[in-house]
Amino acid sequence: MTLLTGEKAAHFRRADAAGWKVAGTTSPNPPVGCVLVDPADGGVIATGATEPPGGAHAEIVALRRAGERARGAHAYVTLEPCNHTGRTGPCAQALIEAHVAEVHYLFADPFRPAAGGGDRLRDAGVRVQGPYLDLRADGADSADWSTSTGIYSVEAWLCSVLRGRPHVTLKLARTADGFIAASDGSSQWITGPAARARVHADRAHRDAIVVGAGTVCTDNPRLTARQPEGTPYPHQPLRVALGRRNLPRERYAMFQGPPEQSLHLRTHDIAEALAELWARGVVDVLVEGGPTLIGAFLAAGIADRLQCYTAPAVLGAGLPGVHNDPQHPTTMADIRRLHPRGLTALGPDVLFIATALTPIPTPPRKA
Amino acid sequence: MTLLTGEKAAHFRRADAAGWKVAGTTSPNPPVGCVLVDPADGGVIATGATEPPGGAHAEIVALRRAGERARGAHAYVTLEPCNHTGRTGPCAQALIEAHVAEVHYLFADPFRPAAGGGDRLRDAGVRVQGPYLDLRADGADSADWSTSTGIYSVEAWLCSVLRGRPHVTLKLARTADGFIAASDGSSQWITGPAARARVHADRAHRDAIVVGAGTVCTDNPRLTARQPEGTPYPHQPLRVALGRRNLPRERYAMFQGPPEQSLHLRTHDIAEALAELWARGVVDVLVEGGPTLIGAFLAAGIADRLQCYTAPAVLGAGLPGVHNDPQHPTTMADIRRLHPRGLTALGPDVLFIATALTPIPTPPRKA
Ligand SMILES: NC(=O)c1ccc[n+]([C@@H]2O[C@H](COP(=O)([O-])OP(=O)(O)OC[C@H]3O[C@@H](n4cnc5c(N)ncnc54)[C@H](OP(=O)(O)O)[C@@H]3O)[C@@H](O)[C@H]2O)c1
Ligand SMILES: NC(=O)c1ccc[n+]([C@@H]2O[C@H](COP(=O)([O-])OP(=O)(O)OC[C@H]3O[C@@H](n4cnc5c(N)ncnc54)[C@H](OP(=O)(O)O)[C@@H]3O)[C@@H](O)[C@H]2O)c1
Repeated sequence: MTLLTGEKAAHFRRADAAGWKVAGTTSPNPPVGCVLVDPADGGVIATGATEPPGGAHAEIVALRRAGERARGAHAYVTLEPCNHTGRTGPCAQALIEAHVAEVHYLFADPFRPAAGGGDRLRDAGVRVQGPYLDLRADGADSADWSTSTGIYSVEAWLCSVLRGRPHVTLKLARTADGFIAASDGSSQWITGPAARARVHADRAHRDAIVVGAGTVCTDNPRLTARQPEGTPYPHQPLRVALGRRNLPRERYAMFQGPPEQSLHLRTHDIAEALAELWARGVVDVLVEGGPTLIGAFLAAGIADRLQCYTAPAVLGAGLPGVHNDPQHPTTMADIRRLHPRGLTALGPDVLFIATALTPIPTPPRKA
Repeated sequence: MTLLTGEKAAHFRRADAAGWKVAGTTSPNPPVGCVLVDPADGGVIATGATEPPGGAHAEIVALRRAGERARGAHAYVTLEPCNHTGRTGPCAQALIEAHVAEVHYLFADPFRPAAGGGDRLRDAGVRVQGPYLDLRADGADSADWSTSTGIYSVEAWLCSVLRGRPHVTLKLARTADGFIAASDGSSQWITGPAARARVHADRAHRDAIVVGAGTVCTDNPRLTARQPEGTPYPHQPLRVALGRRNLPRERYAMFQGPPEQSLHLRTHDIAEALAELWARGVVDVLVEGGPTLIGAFLAAGIADRLQCYTAPAVLGAGLPGVHNDPQHPTTMADIRRLHPRGLTALGPDVLFIATALTPIPTPPRKA
């Protein structure tokens, strides 16, 4: 979605990139990015992103780095600056005190105690523009979604606040004829190195990875986020197995390492499992399968984002990506339409991303 | 696959576009395109494409249109000019007699009686370059396949000559979670208008459309190629049903219209069915489903091109695109890798194309 054009778009993209860098390390706070720009030449004065819980917000980090150069600067923030007094004081107040001249923010803060930062800034005489996007707006699909600059780093958090549960991404990796494993359960490797590297990078920006007990027993995956050479990423998501069977911790790779980094939830109740994770501060969950668990999430109507990796390969028979539960017969009226958001070639493979909530591209108003 | 760059690429693209226009109307001859270019300014003098069987070849059509202006021109043809004496005499000879100065051709003619046109031209003092591509070359995948200019119009014909049977494209249209119909068999509509329009345009360039008897009975499709407002395309492919059951002609929409435009082949033997179509001059077949028939083609190892339409929608349960035949258990060693060739957004949907035989991009040599 090429949603903003020109210089403003470039500033928001830079702010968003800063947010993405810290995604996965900020929960329960949102991974916000902020860029301070010199209005004279459009140059970047300083960039900031949300610190881990207890640390500073993105605006504060950027203001500290800018020091005196913040005076008269234009700020681009992916989320409305907060208005509540946290550990570092409200960001709106800090922007006012630093004499920032203009504040542009992408999304409104839906979280009541924090909202109102935009008004506070306006009252103090700062020029404010935003929100540019609304996650709740029911969008006509953008015609140029396939040239998308991607999904914004704060979307998962925004969605979780609206839903009152963690944001859920379902991942499918399959052959072009629709199989995620051969009939004997073998599935290494359907997609190529570029797609696999993308999955690991994705894990490194999530709070938690969830798999079904079947996948644990069949594949015994580590579920860690590793760089192509094998080095673990600095941030490791919580590894979660769902299922009622016994899963002896010593037997399975996902339970190795620090005990607080893995969890077995002995339930089939998806909402209950998500509530448990929510209570632990988990905001953003990646569900990596298998077909029974993906089917259970879909049957429960819980899928905020879909990430489908497709390999140009055929198996002819095997395990379909979603268990076709005869207990849940469907008719076309049951179809749930999502918004296409991203299309990327990863080596020979394709990644297609769709979301249940889509921000609507709004052209920037005149300053 | 951006395979040729610069002016030559533009000429070949124009020749290929002319070939695509007649694809479906030339079998058993290939849908060739030819462009005659003025070397002085690179301007197009004339374009030609293969006429229906019995008519002129692409080069002859272009030469007729050019008349005297063909003298000294450069010809760009998607297939090596033929050397055999058909109804209009060998194309190589016609190019020589018209005093064309240079001939560039994309693929060699693999069909023995016609081959050798390149040499004949060279012997007569014409500068010849080609083939630029080889369908049989076992290709490392081009890194930039996703920005492909598409598949060449003569590829299906070339593949059919190499295989000694019609070229087979398998079409799948499914939800992002992998279903081609709901549990009750309803499947109208999974993809949107742009994808459906593409399927109809595709039909209009095929020799035959094949479906299984199950699809005939469940959906009773017309299988005609219609423009979005409903007008039939000028070329209608042969409509073929495969299956042993009784299919009374008067009951099913696909058998309406001229009797020579539809066919019921009462067999489960895919090779036998293709041989029967081949004997009728069918070169290029589009298999539109259902899951049982697609599975049978895959189990028989017969899939030259795959066209996967994916909608950003979920059903949660339903009919998977390929019937998972327990009689054909697979392991990962059975995976058949194809070459990714095309990726297109069609409204909210995605079309991913992969082929079993890929031409290798060769940069044009110096003239
Ligand atoms: N290519 C890929 O991307 C990919 C990814 C993952 C897995 N796979 C493949 O998937 C296969 C495993 O398939 P699977 O379907 O057995 O695995 P699964 O979906 O991972 O596990 C199924 C198990 O999940 C538990 N579960 C939790 N909540 C549930 C609910 N609401 N409803 C039903 N079950 C629930 C149940 O465990 P209990 O019985 O213990 O209660 C159930 O048996 C393996 O062959 C693996 O290779 C492929
Ligand atoms: N979304 C889409 O793109 C799409 C496209 C097509 C169909 N569909 C859906 O697919 C469903 C129909 O599924 P289906 O699997 O029953 O349909 P199918 O594959 O069209 O038909 C199956 C029948 O094909 C015949 N057949 C021919 N060669 C065969 C072979 N080698 N092996 C086995 N059978 C062979 C058999 O007919 P006999 O029993 O007469 O021998 C068999 O029963 C419908 O719900 C339809 O809506 C969806």
